[in-house]
This record gives sequence, structure tokens and C-alpha cells, in this order.
Amino acid sequence: MFITRKFHFSASHRIFNPSLSDEENFRIYGKCSNPNGHGHNYVMNITVSGDIDIETGFVMDLTELKNLVEEEIIAKVDHKNLNIDVEFMKGILPSTENVAVKFWEQIEKKINTQKRKLYSIRIGETVNNSVEYRGK
Amino acid sequence: MFITRKFHFSASHRIFNPSLSDEENFRIYGKCSNPNGHGHNYVMNITVSGDIDIETGFVMDLTELKNLVEEEIIAKVDHKNLNIDVEFMKGILPSTENVAVKFWEQIEKKINTQKRKLYSIRIGETVNNSVEYRGK
Amino acid sequence: MFITRKFHFSASHRIFNPSLSDEENFRIYGKCSNPNGHGHNYVMNITVSGDIDIETGFVMDLTELKNLVEEEIIAKVDHKNLNIDVEFMKGILPSTENVAVKFWEQIEKKINTQKRKLYSIRIGETVNNSVEYRGK
Amino acid sequence: MFITRKFHFSASHRIFNPSLSDEENFRIYGKCSNPNGHGHNYVMNITVSGDIDIETGFVMDLTELKNLVEEEIIAKVDHKNLNIDVEFMKGILPSTENVAVKFWEQIEKKINTQKRKLYSIRIGETVNNSVEYRGK
Amino acid sequence: MFITRKFHFSASHRIFNPSLSDEENFRIYGKCSNPNGHGHNYVMNITVSGDIDIETGFVMDLTELKNLVEEEIIAKVDHKNLNIDVEFMKGILPSTENVAVKFWEQIEKKINTQKRKLYSIRIGETVNNSVEYRGK
Amino acid sequence: MFITRKFHFSASHRIFNPSLSDEENFRIYGKCSNPNGHGHNYVMNITVSGDIDIETGFVMDLTELKNLVEEEIIAKVDHKNLNIDVEFMKGILPSTENVAVKFWEQIEKKINTQKRKLYSIRIGETVNNSVEYRGK
Repeated sequence: MFITRKFHFSASHRIFNPSLSDEENFRIYGKCSNPNGHGHNYVMNITVSGDIDIETGFVMDLTELKNLVEEEIIAKVDHKNLNIDVEFMKGILPSTENVAVKFWEQIEKKINTQKRKLYSIRIGETVNNSVEYRGK
Repeated sequence: MFITRKFHFSASHRIFNPSLSDEENFRIYGKCSNPNGHGHNYVMNITVSGDIDIETGFVMDLTELKNLVEEEIIAKVDHKNLNIDVEFMKGILPSTENVAVKFWEQIEKKINTQKRKLYSIRIGETVNNSVEYRGK
Repeated sequence: MFITRKFHFSASHRIFNPSLSDEENFRIYGKCSNPNGHGHNYVMNITVSGDIDIETGFVMDLTELKNLVEEEIIAKVDHKNLNIDVEFMKGILPSTENVAVKFWEQIEKKINTQKRKLYSIRIGETVNNSVEYRGK
Repeated sequence: MFITRKFHFSASHRIFNPSLSDEENFRIYGKCSNPNGHGHNYVMNITVSGDIDIETGFVMDLTELKNLVEEEIIAKVDHKNLNIDVEFMKGILPSTENVAVKFWEQIEKKINTQKRKLYSIRIGETVNNSVEYRGK
Repeated sequence: MFITRKFHFSASHRIFNPSLSDEENFRIYGKCSNPNGHGHNYVMNITVSGDIDIETGFVMDLTELKNLVEEEIIAKVDHKNLNIDVEFMKGILPSTENVAVKFWEQIEKKINTQKRKLYSIRIGETVNNSVEYRGK
Repeated sequence: MFITRKFHFSASHRIFNPSLSDEENFRIYGKCSNPNGHGHNYVMNITVSGDIDIETGFVMDLTELKNLVEEEIIAKVDHKNLNIDVEFMKGILPSTENVAVKFWEQIEKKINTQKRKLYSIRIGETVNNSVEYRGK
């Protein structure tokens, strides 16, 4: 059984590798390397797998999942600049792939129990592009 | 190869455990345990896996799947109260997880053949919350 | 200039006219008159018209609109039964048309100023059906 | 007759009034005034009104509208910072209301003819917030 | 008060003016004039305006509107070729604008009463392009 | 890690088996076998799996994926008739299942490297029906 909750956040970022020149960054990342950054409304779906708890009828209380993700992730990235404002993204190229891995690290241990596991983090960056990470 | 058809139904429910007090129900289920119930527009995606039939080009005729699900599930739950009106939900806490399991039981045998299997039932309860069941 | 904010709420209702018999109600309202009620995820768009305030760049602070509507409407109807639980719907047939009119009455005076007016309340009851009310 | 084409662009911005202190900006704009900016996937619908041209069957060739808007607006704002990178936004507080007015100014004269008029620019900033401008 | 119901239909068409050459058609209509046609999933929203009927709580019974539109329009165009198969489109260039006008003619008289009027037909041809017709 | 890009194309088709009579085709395929064809706006999601490239932060440059799919698939099927106009569909019944398999064949070798693999092609034919192919 899989349960999923959707989250929204808005953030800005600049995709560039500081060890390369602006020209090389533009060659690799195109308009995503614009020096003054740009931004997105990210749509995130977090999925937890597990068995149904017989007493509650739930795999996990979705309100508990909502509160956890809002505290550990959303409060730290919403209306922020992913290159500058987010402690756990420091030194990390904010590609959506890397964002998904770092988000996973923030919540995996707080979700996993004997009965349930963090299964997937899907992040849509634009209406056309998305990534999904299912852990190592 | 996987084929999926989407269905909609609207129903009311109250999430509560009759062996607990109203206070305990409220502590566990919050506003979902409101005594007079509330409701949702459920969005359901049913996925069948199998090989392409060489003659028809289909895994399964989607009209056949539509008719089966409308007869076995939608006709029994649409515009109904899941706690009271649905025979196969009697005595079952109508969490979306439990709803998905009971729906699976209504259709699995009628879908499965040597060439195709019911693969997944995904039910979105609100725009943010959903569950997916893939059988035991 | 028009600004719009979207809201979601989930509620149950039964469409029936208590002065008619169950048979007559079923003839007029069909499955919507099911005695044990059913429910929906309502999607509501509230639009305010006005001029841009030169200092703030806004017609109206959308956070102010959000807080007002959540307090005056959402808190009173979300996860509730519209026939029973909502004070301002008492004695009113909860068709989506009537719901829109009653919602309008809850917020019009608190939104309207010399510079801005409540312009429209649109409520989607299902993925296919919606109503819009623009006042008298 | 009204015709509408949808456009997408991603940009960052910071909502703040440079004549006010950071504290006053935060009081008015909240998290939208974050110093390092944030961003959105904007969804824009541009509507033109007019009569059907008898020869072509169109009010306006939507490919012509698409090319015009992509050249005059999208190319200048997509993956840009609205406070810094966009010539026609210089000195303008980038609230969505003001963005809509400035966009209108870029394209009105190039769209309007005797037979058709720019009717509306709707811009969705987030999944919940949008503005619509219909000119003076 | 405005009520709206959404409809879906899938059809093929070729946009071309038979009095012009294939080359001229291609110059005006581009890929839409492909000789073997192409197709779309059209999304149509039909809006009726009027007052709330005090007895029923409705402007118009949406089931009545649904049945009327399915009989007069959907049954005649769904899974059809708009250039060839549809009686009321004979000799009409099937631009979405012209489709909207012809649809209006099929249903206006059957909807309009003293208390309610057909207000708008909106047709989305693709995810980005749509037209709206509000009558003469 | 999985990355997904969404594509749109509009095409017409007729589902019929040329070795059967029109009557038999209608019995099996219903309105989908209409002799003059019909059409759809197809929505396609292509997913590639792999590891994050440490230098770029990407599994695969989505612009590279976009260009590849537009060249190998979209340019050949958009605004075309799938029964007649598409070289690689010749002699193939254009069920969505078969379309997905043929699309897979066009791009698999151009996407797969040691580090990344084509994982899935999902095609939505209508708002309710979709298929997903993950290769043999």
C-alpha cells in the first residue's frame, strides 16, 4: 500500500557550476544559468509505503506526514533562493535531481519505522519536467 | 504493458472507530471524524498489466474495463454514504486505504486472466491526498 | 483589474426539498437526493475587482483575502455536512447555486471598500459542474 | 468571439518597495520580500476579441499571436529575474498586477486592428493566485 | 447566476479552404491543413445564465443540460470527422471559432426560456488554444 | 533516479483491422472504427532512469531529451493521420498500446548509455484512458 501527499513551494535558483566560467555554464545549462536566477512553482509528491494499521485504517496519518514535511522541508525552501538561503543545499548544484536527494535526506529517518518506509519523492519543476527519487 | 482508466465518484464518509469515544476519534482523526460526515470527489485510476493481444492491439478493451468497474464499484458508491449505503464496506472503517482494498476484492477475479492482471488501484481523496494499492 | 484566489473544501450534502416526498425529491434531484447524503471536494475561486494600489502594487493583499475567506467560510464548511452543520445554511437547500449566494453574503461587506469590490464567486462541485455568482 | 492562448514562463522576483525598510517590506509583503528573491512558473492566458474572418475562419491566427507574445514578452522574461533583467519592468514593483499591466503595454498596439482587440491578460502566479487585466 | 457544465469529445478535422490550392492552404493554415487530417480531444464548457428557481434551487437542472448537449452535439461529433461526418458542419471550415458558432445554433433555442439564456460556449482545442462564443 | 518530460501531439487515427469487415470492426472497436477517423490530443510522458552525473547534476539534459523526442517522434506524428502519414506505423493497428511500442523503438537506442536507460513511455489518449510501456 502506498500513500502520497502533494506539496507546493515556490523558489528561485540558478543552475551553474562555480568551478566553470559563465560561458561554459551557459553552454551546459543554457538559460537556466542566467546570473540573476529564475524561479519555479515546484510541485512535490511524497510517497510512503507500508501496511495498513488495523486500528487506524491508515498506513500513516497524512496530517503527521504533512506537518513533518512542512517543518523539515517546506518552511526552509518556500519563497527562498535555493542557491543562497537553504542550509542543507549549501555547496550543492540545485538541479531538481540534487534537490530531491537532499530532501530525501531531511525526512527519511523521521518517516521510516518497522512498518512503513519513505518510498519516493517526485518533484515537478515545470509543467513539463519532473524527477523522481526512490533512494539508493 | 500497463493500461489505465480514470473514474470519478462522489461520496460522503465519516472516519471513526466505533469502539472508541467521540473524543478519542477526534484525537486520532481530527475533522475527518465530524459526526455528520463530510464528502469528497474521489478520482480513481485502475491499471491492468498484460501483453498486447495481437488481433485487437489492446491489453484489454477499455470499454469492457469501464463497464465492469461502473457495474461492480461506481454504481454502488457514487452519491452514496460509504459508512451506511455500501454493502461491501459494512463494518469497515472507510479510510481511503481500506476503500482501495475492498474495491480490489470486487474486481480482481473478474479482470484477471492468463494474459492480464489487475495491477493497481489508485484513489485520490482530495487534490493533495491519494493512496495506491497493488494487491498482496 | 481582477484578482482571484482559489480555495478547496470538502463537504457532504443531500439535495432535497423537505416539503416534498422522498419520491418527488428523487424525481427532481435523482441520486443527489440519496437519504444518507454524499459529498464533494468543492473548488472555489473568489474574484475581487479594483484598481492597483500604487504603494503596494496590489488590488488587495491576497493573504488578507485568504485569511478572511478561511475564517468566514472555509472554517465553517470544510469537512462538514452542509444540511446540518452550517449555521448560515440552515433552512437553505444546499444546491451549489444557493451555496454561492450564501457565501457571498458572508464576505461581501468585509471585502468591499471604495477601491475594490467582490466581483465573483465560482464554485466547482465536481470536475464537470460549476456555478458562478456575481451578486445582484 | 474570444480566442485565448496559454503561455508559460518561469521567473524570479522579490516583492519589495525600495523606499521602505526591510522590516516594513516584510510587514507588508511577508515571505514575498525575502532579500534573495524566489520564483514562480507563471501561467498566462491572453485573450483577443473580434469577429470571425470569413476567409480564414479565424478571429486571429493563433500562430501569429503565439509568435508575437513569445517575441515581445516570453523571450524577455522567461528564466529571468523580473526585478533586474527585464528592461520594461525597470523601476516597477513586480507584483503580478503590475506585471500584467506592463505586458499589456508591450503587445496591445501590435494586436489591435479594426477587427480585433486585446481583451484580457490573465496571469496565474501560483496554483492558487491569479490576476486578470482587461485594460483601462 | 451562471452555471457551467464541461463536456469532452474527440474528433478529427482538416483546416483548409477548398477554393484555394493546397499550397495556399498550407501557407495560411500550416500543419493544420495536412491532407489526411489530424485530431483533438476537445474540452467544451457550456454556460447558462439565469435566476435561481426558488423551488429547485437550480438555474437549470444540469442533468437536463447534459442530456440536451449530448443528444444535440456530442452524439453527432464525438469520434467523427468534422469535415465529413457532421451534417450541420457541411460546407463550413471547421475552425474552432466556426465550430462554436454552429454548436450555439444547435442548442440556443432549446435552452433559452424567459428565465434562462445560453450565455457562452467555450471550446478548448488543445491544452493551449481555446475560443469562447457568447452569441451575437 | 527517474526524470520525466511531458510532450503533446495531436493526431487522427482509425482503429480497425483491415482483415475484418466493417461490421466486425465496429463490433470490436465501436465508434473508434468510424471510417473517416477521429482524433486526439495525446499527452506523452517519457521517463529515463539513471544515476546523477556529478559534474552536471543531471541524469540527462532534458533539453537533449526534448530535442531527440521532437525530432524522432513529434515531428513525424503531430497533426498527422497515424494510419496513413507515419512511416514507422505502416501496417500497424494504431491502438495506443501499439503506438507506445513503436515510439519506444524509435528512441531507445538513442537514449540508452551505460549510465541511463529509457524506462517508460506513458501515453494518454483521452482524459480518462492511458497506457504505459516499459519495454520487454
